[in-house]
Amino acid sequence: MTWKKAMRIGYIGLGIMGKPMALNIQKAGFELHIWARRPEATVDLQAAGATAHTNLPALSQCCDVIFLNVSDTPDVEQLILGDGGLLEHAKPGTIIVDNSTISPDATRHMAKQLAEKGIHMLDAPVSGGDVGAIAGTLSIMVGGKADIFEKVKAVLSACGTNILHIGDHGAGQICKACNQILVAQSMAAVGESMLLAKASGVDAAKVRQALLGGFAQSRILDIHGQRILDNNFAPGFKSELHHKDMGIALDAANQGGLELPGAQLAAEHLQAMVEQGLGGEDSSAMCKVIAAESDFPLFD
Amino acid sequence: MTWKKAMRIGYIGLGIMGKPMALNIQKAGFELHIWARRPEATVDLQAAGATAHTNLPALSQCCDVIFLNVSDTPDVEQLILGDGGLLEHAKPGTIIVDNSTISPDATRHMAKQLAEKGIHMLDAPVSGGDVGAIAGTLSIMVGGKADIFEKVKAVLSACGTNILHIGDHGAGQICKACNQILVAQSMAAVGESMLLAKASGVDAAKVRQALLGGFAQSRILDIHGQRILDNNFAPGFKSELHHKDMGIALDAANQGGLELPGAQLAAEHLQAMVEQGLGGEDSSAMCKVIAAESDFPLFD
Repeated sequence: MTWKKAMRIGYIGLGIMGKPMALNIQKAGFELHIWARRPEATVDLQAAGATAHTNLPALSQCCDVIFLNVSDTPDVEQLILGDGGLLEHAKPGTIIVDNSTISPDATRHMAKQLAEKGIHMLDAPVSGGDVGAIAGTLSIMVGGKADIFEKVKAVLSACGTNILHIGDHGAGQICKACNQILVAQSMAAVGESMLLAKASGVDAAKVRQALLGGFAQSRILDIHGQRILDNNFAPGFKSELHHKDMGIALDAANQGGLELPGAQLAAEHLQAMVEQGLGGEDSSAMCKVIAAESDFPLFD
Repeated sequence: MTWKKAMRIGYIGLGIMGKPMALNIQKAGFELHIWARRPEATVDLQAAGATAHTNLPALSQCCDVIFLNVSDTPDVEQLILGDGGLLEHAKPGTIIVDNSTISPDATRHMAKQLAEKGIHMLDAPVSGGDVGAIAGTLSIMVGGKADIFEKVKAVLSACGTNILHIGDHGAGQICKACNQILVAQSMAAVGESMLLAKASGVDAAKVRQALLGGFAQSRILDIHGQRILDNNFAPGFKSELHHKDMGIALDAANQGGLELPGAQLAAEHLQAMVEQGLGGEDSSAMCKVIAAESDFPLFD
């Protein structure tokens, strides 16, 4: 067993993304430790050989690298800064790898506090959805120190195929924000394109097929264009989480002195979805609120 | 020589797109006839073996299939309905293939008038840019009668790799309108994404690279994202033409009772470009007007 494989890995946040990522780390030959508020979340990973702990300090004490994958900034702050959290219990030299999508500012603040106790942090949000998490083909955007990134690159390689060190603390989260505003606008644009075909009495499936062969080609047109045609908005990526991410991105833009009218418009669509009780649907369902504004029937 | 190769092909509109398309038809073994208002536009094709005519009626008399590739609806109307035009001079049975991007309504109207004289029309706008035109890898979206489409498919195959019969007259133009609103919004969204990286002090080139590996992957992020990083806005596809196409698309949406807020926003960016004297730049230069609204410096 190599030194890298000898690293003991902790994974916290065993949801739709975290669970398959943890499983891929386990399968790659790393010793995997897990803890979850809901013990039932650990069952499958324990069956695969992971060690489940009953509390976070216990996990902290026996891990060299601890991954986090939770929903929002306050969740990460609770795990790191809260009572019984990692700032208090992780060993000096521990590397915390945050796969969550959260505020770049909060990330920089926590990284600084952790560094004062000799604990390293990397922000490492991902793109590629549950499909990419299961297949181990995620794109992983990493912020933090380059030498720390190098130490965990082999572990990240178990989860993704496009793993890039973007810059210092927070740069991974900025990169994810750039991703989320592009994806949101692309979802809305694909929706508008399919709606225009339908409103004009033209076969939208053929339009999607034609557009995939030209400059309009995109993974979103491919995957989410098909979802729109199928009227299938089971997540995937919930619009309420995408709405949360747009808030992070627009805050970052605001701090940089930048107005992003397209991202703002997409964020308004996502907000309308949340307000209309569609927050649990895939964010490609944005086409529903666009269509509704024109009293236009959907694909069904 | 097969029957198909024996078809005599005319090509009118030897611009940035038409000239390489005509050359590919010539190279595929078809007898090529050309005519242009500016005789110098025919020099290269004559050197390759094409027959240049001194007027449109002369070309009309010796062609079985006549391609058009001009800028806007009035240009096509002039060639078909104008004095000395194709409605007057083309032989019954002639197939007119319009590669221009024009109004679906005007297309349907001309197709009807031509049909009354036994002349067939196909709307066949393309996507893929000058690069695709030269390489013969365009996406071609065809509207009109299916049996007429089948007759010219072999000729279209000389120009493109993704050739689809979308529906009846005008359906090709509707498909192109769907393409243009998706491309315009994608250009703007890629621009916003690169600007957010820069405004946040993060390496936009690394962000582009990371995003290409995830859900945000698109041909526009690949090609035009790089243009934005390089501050290289030589067309490509001129924003003034893209602005014209957005007008066609928004008219079609309006007729279908549909509002498209994202397409509307992108059209406003393109209009601002035209008003600011940037109409001759590639439409990816939309990021300039987005940045200018925040007094934000560009990539340079």
